[in-house]
Amino acid sequence: MILDIIRKKACNLELTREELETIFNGYLHDEVKDYQMSAFLMAICINDMSDSEIFALTDIFIKSGDVLDLSFMPSKVIDKHSTGGVGDKTTLIVAPIVASLGVAVVKMSGRGLGYTGGTIDKLESIPNFKVDLSEDVIKKQALDIGVVVTSQSEDLVPLDKKVYALRDVTATTNSIPLIASSIMSKKIASGADGIVIDIKVGSGALIKTRKEAERLANIIIKIGNYYQKEVRTIISDMNTPLGKCIGNKLEVFEAIDVLQNKVKGPLYDTCLEIASKMVSMGKNISEKEALKEVVSSIENKDAYKKFLQFVKYQGGDLEKLEINAKVYNIKANKSGVLKNIDALEIAKLSKSLGAGRTSKEEEIDYNAGVVLTKEIGDKISEGDILANLYTNIDKLDFNVERIFEIS
Amino acid sequence: MILDIIRKKACNLELTREELETIFNGYLHDEVKDYQMSAFLMAICINDMSDSEIFALTDIFIKSGDVLDLSFMPSKVIDKHSTGGVGDKTTLIVAPIVASLGVAVVKMSGRGLGYTGGTIDKLESIPNFKVDLSEDVIKKQALDIGVVVTSQSEDLVPLDKKVYALRDVTATTNSIPLIASSIMSKKIASGADGIVIDIKVGSGALIKTRKEAERLANIIIKIGNYYQKEVRTIISDMNTPLGKCIGNKLEVFEAIDVLQNKVKGPLYDTCLEIASKMVSMGKNISEKEALKEVVSSIENKDAYKKFLQFVKYQGGDLEKLEINAKVYNIKANKSGVLKNIDALEIAKLSKSLGAGRTSKEEEIDYNAGVVLTKEIGDKISEGDILANLYTNIDKLDFNVERIFEIS
Repeated sequence: MILDIIRKKACNLELTREELETIFNGYLHDEVKDYQMSAFLMAICINDMSDSEIFALTDIFIKSGDVLDLSFMPSKVIDKHSTGGVGDKTTLIVAPIVASLGVAVVKMSGRGLGYTGGTIDKLESIPNFKVDLSEDVIKKQALDIGVVVTSQSEDLVPLDKKVYALRDVTATTNSIPLIASSIMSKKIASGADGIVIDIKVGSGALIKTRKEAERLANIIIKIGNYYQKEVRTIISDMNTPLGKCIGNKLEVFEAIDVLQNKVKGPLYDTCLEIASKMVSMGKNISEKEALKEVVSSIENKDAYKKFLQFVKYQGGDLEKLEINAKVYNIKANKSGVLKNIDALEIAKLSKSLGAGRTSKEEEIDYNAGVVLTKEIGDKISEGDILANLYTNIDKLDFNVERIFEIS
Repeated sequence: MILDIIRKKACNLELTREELETIFNGYLHDEVKDYQMSAFLMAICINDMSDSEIFALTDIFIKSGDVLDLSFMPSKVIDKHSTGGVGDKTTLIVAPIVASLGVAVVKMSGRGLGYTGGTIDKLESIPNFKVDLSEDVIKKQALDIGVVVTSQSEDLVPLDKKVYALRDVTATTNSIPLIASSIMSKKIASGADGIVIDIKVGSGALIKTRKEAERLANIIIKIGNYYQKEVRTIISDMNTPLGKCIGNKLEVFEAIDVLQNKVKGPLYDTCLEIASKMVSMGKNISEKEALKEVVSSIENKDAYKKFLQFVKYQGGDLEKLEINAKVYNIKANKSGVLKNIDALEIAKLSKSLGAGRTSKEEEIDYNAGVVLTKEIGDKISEGDILANLYTNIDKLDFNVERIFEIS
């Protein structure tokens, strides 16, 4: 029976909801083995899925666990998600902005598995910050201050968790239907009324082409409609890192700089775009009106005050946040114009400094990371410092030319 | 590294020999996990393999274990293989025919995993017949009587064994490159000078279409050329069972009938074709000349005498071969002409009577099986007996109309 279903997908035939339930629920309950599921996932990666298969799979994921009920909230609750990129600290900036404007943000987030830390790792790099909140605590905090960021509950879409762990070790991550159902099942189970999805495209992202990103956006919106949730998407560049800082504590400092209105550029712009869409949905106003509110919440420091309140509420101690690491430089070995800073290479460098993990067991050094000191388009002279590296390891190994393109 | 190789195949790019070695030898040594190999095998099933990938894979399989050296033999050694069908007892008939004509046959064979027994099961149904021969015994027997049929040594292509077991439980059996490299690695490691491959096509076979069979034949011959082995192929029908008897002891009795020149029809014809090709290769004569020798070896009972010598040499006791089972009938429930006897349905029926196994742990009842009493094209009256069923189980469950098409 299981083999017939796998064979059907291998022959590129559409599966029924019952067939998808048989194999995925079988996997959840250990009746379908890892080696059978991975063969099936590979067949999906190559042969793709129809919209109705994707809807069914998302629903099977959601029904595998609990759903957070946020209907008691007086305002709309808006969530956001980024498909992951290098230097992406937008949640740390966007969540307090939106909450400062009276729209609640309740977000469950993941740890990083790739080259850099995830939002939860970044928050946990703040001394004493608590990321494992119970449902009761989440609900109380949402009512009290309108913003919560917590690690994903074990009871939420456990099937996605199990499938994701297998995809990660079987080269089956690169599938738009699997990415869409994984993201949306978690977002829908998290109980928000509206969701903004930031799809990253480029060398440092899972999605490498604009075309794939557009398909993902399209499917995500359809899944949202299916559950009567408003979903808006952004497609943003991830060929170069977002912002100057890569590494957990370093990114917290950069987020604070943005909230203190000290930073402009791509990171600031992306945050404004995400926050505007969230506020627009939360208040039923146009994105243009929302943008004005977002900008003024940064300018008048409301967003920054909300950030301080949020960190304090979850136990974090910003006074104790400091970088304990040795600092090295990367210097330009020729003169010219800085043409590109490769996001994937920066991510690998950052990982090599201790800032990321590629298996669950690895420990992250929150102090480690990279601070870029030049921007794309800058004139460079041989010997100029291109980046500062923060690390507690002794042997550095990188190739300047793979990271920085100067010509 | 492993994930990069899997991803490359998933993207339908050609792999190098080194990449195939990394993943397959890694699997042999448990560095690549079952769930990674099954994802990779599925990518091969869907995206296929180039000729040079198939050659490399076959070579990696062969080099994973020992190779039997038969160069000491005074005559050429010719092997045969069938891709498996229902009622296929050709080895039992062909091996003694060919050996009786002075061409040695040394064949390693498998047990059945599907619905019916394999050649080794059929031979083992003869009381005291020994199928697990050491290399020394194989070589001595080959010199003494020119015919050996033994179960496959553990040391021969262990990697194929491990991969095959995984394919069997992950719906990744249906791949021409994987079938070709699996068959040919075993045949080449078995040390013969020439090989005849009988490719079965139809409902009762792994290969369902003539087109696939032709591609398999083509690849098999190319692999043979690569190793400077002469290979000839036959493509034969497996929509209906081969012969009248299906079941282990029953098939031995039918093989004896053929060798005693008592049976004509498709089974006899297929045996002549395979044997003629083998003798033609072994003696460097035309297939037409070889056919004459084959027919006379049956007519003058040389082939039958060689069969008796072969069974006795391996310890078998033909006097003690008898069927211990209850006999039931299948009767026609309408009149008309017998249009078809479905091979797959007969195989399932035979399995249900106890004659086959679908997992390694199951035991076979050598007495069980089916004897067909009507041929395709026969006129049938309602109530006519269509088949006799031999079994030691009490509850029979079958659908006459799915097996026998009468109109």
